[in-house]
Amino acid sequence: MKIGILGGGQLAQLLSYSAYQLGLEVICYAPSSNCPAARNSSIIVGELDNREQLTKFAEQVDVISLENENIDVATLHFLQARKPLAPNPAAIKTSQDRLLEKALFTKLGFNTAHYQAVNSLTDLDNACESQPLPGLLKTRRFGYDGKGQARINSTDEAQQAWNSIAQQPAILESFVDFDYEVSLIAARNHDGHCRFFPLLKNQHHNGILRLSTLLNKPNLQQKAQNMLNTLLSELQYVGVLTLELFVKGESLYANEMAPRVHNSGHLTIEGCNCSQFEAHLRAITNLPLPKIEPTIPTAMINIIGIPPPNAVLQQTPLHYYDYGKSPRPNRKLGHLTVQTRTEDELSKKVAQIDALTTSKTQWT
Amino acid sequence: MKIGILGGGQLAQLLSYSAYQLGLEVICYAPSSNCPAARNSSIIVGELDNREQLTKFAEQVDVISLENENIDVATLHFLQARKPLAPNPAAIKTSQDRLLEKALFTKLGFNTAHYQAVNSLTDLDNACESQPLPGLLKTRRFGYDGKGQARINSTDEAQQAWNSIAQQPAILESFVDFDYEVSLIAARNHDGHCRFFPLLKNQHHNGILRLSTLLNKPNLQQKAQNMLNTLLSELQYVGVLTLELFVKGESLYANEMAPRVHNSGHLTIEGCNCSQFEAHLRAITNLPLPKIEPTIPTAMINIIGIPPPNAVLQQTPLHYYDYGKSPRPNRKLGHLTVQTRTEDELSKKVAQIDALTTSKTQWT
Repeated sequence: MKIGILGGGQLAQLLSYSAYQLGLEVICYAPSSNCPAARNSSIIVGELDNREQLTKFAEQVDVISLENENIDVATLHFLQARKPLAPNPAAIKTSQDRLLEKALFTKLGFNTAHYQAVNSLTDLDNACESQPLPGLLKTRRFGYDGKGQARINSTDEAQQAWNSIAQQPAILESFVDFDYEVSLIAARNHDGHCRFFPLLKNQHHNGILRLSTLLNKPNLQQKAQNMLNTLLSELQYVGVLTLELFVKGESLYANEMAPRVHNSGHLTIEGCNCSQFEAHLRAITNLPLPKIEPTIPTAMINIIGIPPPNAVLQQTPLHYYDYGKSPRPNRKLGHLTVQTRTEDELSKKVAQIDALTTSKTQWT
Repeated sequence: MKIGILGGGQLAQLLSYSAYQLGLEVICYAPSSNCPAARNSSIIVGELDNREQLTKFAEQVDVISLENENIDVATLHFLQARKPLAPNPAAIKTSQDRLLEKALFTKLGFNTAHYQAVNSLTDLDNACESQPLPGLLKTRRFGYDGKGQARINSTDEAQQAWNSIAQQPAILESFVDFDYEVSLIAARNHDGHCRFFPLLKNQHHNGILRLSTLLNKPNLQQKAQNMLNTLLSELQYVGVLTLELFVKGESLYANEMAPRVHNSGHLTIEGCNCSQFEAHLRAITNLPLPKIEPTIPTAMINIIGIPPPNAVLQQTPLHYYDYGKSPRPNRKLGHLTVQTRTEDELSKKVAQIDALTTSKTQWT
């Protein structure tokens, strides 16, 4: 069976590695054959508006999925008319747009940050008056890794913030005074069966995910699962979806969702009996989904900007996934998975490796 | 760092998947780009006597290894003059030749089957008179999966057996009345540090490995490790080596060795904290070797001749490695890894899957 993936980055690459272990083949659609997924997949080269190439791609695969949600809905419908597409275009559309996403969270009764739509400087001034500050002005679309965002501490910073996001349609989000951030990943198949991964605790640096660890908090896990179960049913979702949440005490605030496998879930390759990649592939091909169980304490450290020094690679046991990308500031080049017998050992090992991979040049 | 592998079959393919998790790149040297390793590696196409292509290959890699020991020693020396080669040519040469191999086992004091060199029909007649029968006449070189072998039950079958192996230089091996077969895989790095995998119990069908399972027998493990440790030191070996043994009660008989990763070790991907592939790559690049520890009960079933039916792939959790080869009788097309919480569950699950994947067409 052939799986078509829109995109050829590291998520496509990791999906393709997992596909191999299920006897599946991956064909990626990407603007260039010089991409991480080319290492282990066939690539059909084309832009997302090239209907001829999209047709060729659709003809060669049995089911289509994606590694990046920022794809025009018209393109998604074009593909869906040719081959099964999962997740569905409506779910992808909602996740592309922070306003639609937040409105859905609100409709489903989830806690979220205070937010308002901002289409003009006047809107922004009004929002700054009526919402708690500080807040973040975020473009409705195309934001990732902290891009398309501006912090607003007081109303007089509104103009500057509005210009800094190029006056794009946006939302103003008040800060949530949270304790820490988590993500919950789940897979849902065509029969509506859902499987949930353990919560992942996420730490960011300069707006980019740096560290994820398996989190064992049964109460929070259950609350988050209830939310995500509601969300997946509402969206009639098929595949893996990731919900990012803020934790404050025992309360959860929905932050955003990604209709795909997620950077925070890379540790599931070693840290769970079934990875997020395998779960996604099983869901979209309607293979049975196993109950997800963690193995041993596991953490993931992103390699950002510069490759890890030899001292890191000498550590054992350690898995280093090198996406094959050339170094560039703030670019995700790979990730490390660290596993130990106990939680205590894990914290120590992570601190040690974190220190070895953090450098001044890395964070400039 | 770039690893050159001589050969492009499934062992090269699996090495390449593991290389990815160590941040290494694999370039294979193969007679055709239409080979399993092409799925996830660069291929340099050339025959093993094409010095021009071999030079090009050596120039592009940092260290050279192999997935098949049947390579002319002159070729190995040619490559070794250009880039580090592991394992060393002398070790590979010994493992290519059943007579040299058995002579080494004897020199090191290992139990082996009774054997004699056979270079003529007269030799064979004499061997049949002086050794216990039944026995196996085996060509000294190029035998695998039961090929290049003929069974001899009585002296009057000597002529037919000799013709059936095309009168190649051979050995006559008396049958060992064993209880079962095992293999022990170990890795040794440049510093002489060795790490041993758990014993694997192997079951064959028609001379081809069908099923391997992790075996927990501390006494046998220790005995086998002592033998393999002696062998690796004697060969000044670097990389992974596999020793196949017969078990009779508490005694071990050395059968043969493979200077490479081995089909019986495929289950180490899921069944151990470090796979045989990772261990080999760590050894030849002189990365530290972790202490090898099993995870949970694990078995591997080879997929031979015909692909597994859907009913097999519906099982969960199950890993199916599809090498991407076209079906053909007796051809290894892929393997399944099965894991369960208990040994009992494992036997049941394996029996179930074994029944689903064994068919009349498969074994013709």
